[in-house]
Amino acid sequence: MKNVLIVYPLREEQKARLEATSADCRYVYAVEPTREQVREANIILGSISPAKLKAAENLEFLQLHYSGADAYVKPGVLPEGAALASATGAYGQSVSEHAFAMTWTLLKKLHLYRDDQNRIVWGEHGQVGTLRGATVLVVGLGDIGLQYAQMVKAMGSYVIGVKRRPSALPEGVDELVLTENLDSVLPRADVVFCVLPGTNDTFHLFNDERFALMKPGAVFVNCGRGNVVDGMALCRALENGRLAAAGTDVTEVEPLPPEHPLWKQPNMLITPHVAGNEHLASTHDRIAEILLHNFDAFLNGKPLKSAIDFSTGCKK
Amino acid sequence: MKNVLIVYPLREEQKARLEATSADCRYVYAVEPTREQVREANIILGSISPAKLKAAENLEFLQLHYSGADAYVKPGVLPEGAALASATGAYGQSVSEHAFAMTWTLLKKLHLYRDDQNRIVWGEHGQVGTLRGATVLVVGLGDIGLQYAQMVKAMGSYVIGVKRRPSALPEGVDELVLTENLDSVLPRADVVFCVLPGTNDTFHLFNDERFALMKPGAVFVNCGRGNVVDGMALCRALENGRLAAAGTDVTEVEPLPPEHPLWKQPNMLITPHVAGNEHLASTHDRIAEILLHNFDAFLNGKPLKSAIDFSTGCKK
Repeated sequence: MKNVLIVYPLREEQKARLEATSADCRYVYAVEPTREQVREANIILGSISPAKLKAAENLEFLQLHYSGADAYVKPGVLPEGAALASATGAYGQSVSEHAFAMTWTLLKKLHLYRDDQNRIVWGEHGQVGTLRGATVLVVGLGDIGLQYAQMVKAMGSYVIGVKRRPSALPEGVDELVLTENLDSVLPRADVVFCVLPGTNDTFHLFNDERFALMKPGAVFVNCGRGNVVDGMALCRALENGRLAAAGTDVTEVEPLPPEHPLWKQPNMLITPHVAGNEHLASTHDRIAEILLHNFDAFLNGKPLKSAIDFSTGCKK
Repeated sequence: MKNVLIVYPLREEQKARLEATSADCRYVYAVEPTREQVREANIILGSISPAKLKAAENLEFLQLHYSGADAYVKPGVLPEGAALASATGAYGQSVSEHAFAMTWTLLKKLHLYRDDQNRIVWGEHGQVGTLRGATVLVVGLGDIGLQYAQMVKAMGSYVIGVKRRPSALPEGVDELVLTENLDSVLPRADVVFCVLPGTNDTFHLFNDERFALMKPGAVFVNCGRGNVVDGMALCRALENGRLAAAGTDVTEVEPLPPEHPLWKQPNMLITPHVAGNEHLASTHDRIAEILLHNFDAFLNGKPLKSAIDFSTGCKK
């Protein structure tokens, strides 16, 4: 018999389907579980905080309901041998749309017009950009990156995808390069969308040198992890005009400290890590489907969706 | 011999092509023409101000470089019998993209996050909307409306087009209704995009009654003419929550008076009639092509592109 602790808020119908998976489990639903509930759990469904996992001495499988697993792959967070899976895939629509909306806002300078509106100023900000005929670089071609690629492609952009491993050309991508060749394509992009996970390999990938490689007047959007971008380098790239504008839903430290100079860059658009969550109604159901699928897979020794590799922090 | 006054700033190469149309014309280039230049002109290319036209006693043809002709169809602005054409078509990409960007900004609440950013607040605004699976009503299916329709269709929306005259179903439109049946489709729309010209028929088309017909939580965007919308009714629809948010590039009086309550509606996004102009680099060339085409057409008695009907203020 397995003890299953469900910290993700499922609907009654979803609970019934979960419990129908196996009669040989004890199901405990607790969004804020006690130390004892965590200690007893063999399986946890939902993103319990890493601090609470110290008690999870019987844990065999943790299914996150977030897509980022970086906080869980550090040594000692999970017991030796426990499996880990993320909910990558559930957030693809929500985050890609948020990034797409940010891209358009910045291209059309709506953030500056909003500032003017708040000051009751009726004035203009000159030339604007477009995605039609633009070259868009999508750095990170998971579910989010691919959906973003397909949206910008539908707007008439030429899409260059950047990924770790060679593959066939995905739908919505015109050209594919490997991460180690990023520098060769950065100068061509009018828009760069970064949606990389936070790993040792991606730490401060976007730094002074890489921003200096970008096309003057380019737009940069980050909806991956904050530490993929050197925040001070981003400030400098905005101040020296290399970037026309930038948007980010993530920062190196969250919340972004009040004194951080990024807050005050007029051409920086900041949202407080809200692209994912469950702000899009359909996301909750997608997460629940992943939880149910992987619970069944784990119990029956089938492959997990979005199983995490502890050495990279990414999907296996 | 015709006197041709060109008030629209053409490039040298475009001037050469214009003059190659006919050797039997005198070409005068003046962005700010004198009264005498206006008096002599048989043909004016570019949107000279209506006030200056009082002197234009020899005018046979006025080719605007704007798309809106409402200020020029009033009795007495043009001499009896003069032809009038607009530059509808040149602004399709620019205005449709601006409206599309506004739509996404509002759906994802980026205007509210921008306000928070300016106050250094890291907080959240809950549920957001999407175009995927949404029903979008496009009121006015000229060049701008059609391009907007195709963009939202590419995002997975169901598009209902509203136009004055019956026609075959245009590309990007799933369902077509006539303007007189607007009320029957308003309750179905998650997003309403209005891009109607300012005419007697369209004055305050969007009033309290029509906003009351809309789906609670809908998003409304206007990039046609400001007086198509009753601004105070729009305020009320935002205040009473009928509309989740609204965006407008046009207002009844422009600039919008500082005391107008629309300025202060948090879910109202206002841009100062900048969707068109020539903020998109490609717009200038499109305008020049229309000017050159219609100059040749007028001289040779061929049909004008976007000739204006003085009784409606719209394309014939």
